[in-house]
Amino acid sequence: MAQPTSDDAAVIAANDAFYRAFESLEIDRMRALWLPSGPITCVHPGWDALVGWPAVMESWEQIFTGTLGMRFTLSDVTVRVVADAAWVLCVEHIESRELDGMTEARIQATNVFERRDGRWWIVHHHGGPLFGPRARTQSPLQ
Amino acid sequence: MAQPTSDDAAVIAANDAFYRAFESLEIDRMRALWLPSGPITCVHPGWDALVGWPAVMESWEQIFTGTLGMRFTLSDVTVRVVADAAWVLCVEHIESRELDGMTEARIQATNVFERRDGRWWIVHHHGGPLFGPRARTQSPLQ
Repeated sequence: MAQPTSDDAAVIAANDAFYRAFESLEIDRMRALWLPSGPITCVHPGWDALVGWPAVMESWEQIFTGTLGMRFTLSDVTVRVVADAAWVLCVEHIESRELDGMTEARIQATNVFERRDGRWWIVHHHGGPLFGPRARTQSPLQ
Repeated sequence: MAQPTSDDAAVIAANDAFYRAFESLEIDRMRALWLPSGPITCVHPGWDALVGWPAVMESWEQIFTGTLGMRFTLSDVTVRVVADAAWVLCVEHIESRELDGMTEARIQATNVFERRDGRWWIVHHHGGPLFGPRARTQSPLQ
């Protein structure tokens, strides 16, 4: 397995910040992480892809309005950096408290980041449902 | 909407080649598109993420063995290029013929590519199920 680099660590930190903003249910905190004026995209589990700032931010407002509390634990995190682009895969273990009760979910995410002026911004989030129990131990990213 | 560039076109061509290889059900044709010795990753709909060449290629062999025929039509294609990295979002409209009959599916994909020596290689595929009818007309990628 390749040794993590400082770039890897910075991208992992940006990925963690995304989930802390998600847990905060604060739209301003979420907005602050996405590439300003960027061609951002977002796929929530089962939803059609959202393209562009208005659609993506509207979706976060909708999710935050309908949620009372949310906690993420991440596993199976891999990161790949290619110059000023990077992508992270991770499994989101989610506990969420909504108006009609608690739900637990396991979501596979692909999160893409771009670096501008030394800072990593999220530009794409894709969350997809995982079916069934965890199937296998994975080999590390090469 | 930004004008497509020649880089965009080359990435779209690499994305199309991925789906033609998928339709071919030929493992050698699929292998030829993934970054050699690369840290590749793949998420089939509902599966845990597969990390590294052996796991990813084993999954394609498994899918191709269980499938008699497959046709993809793509819609809602967006592309973003950042130097030697790129990602494509698209909706896969799939007709597949399997041992137990025909199935139709609609999958949201995020496909990530890296450029080496002028050629775009696929390095990550994430396919996630879409639920329900198509919800809205999307705005174009900025």
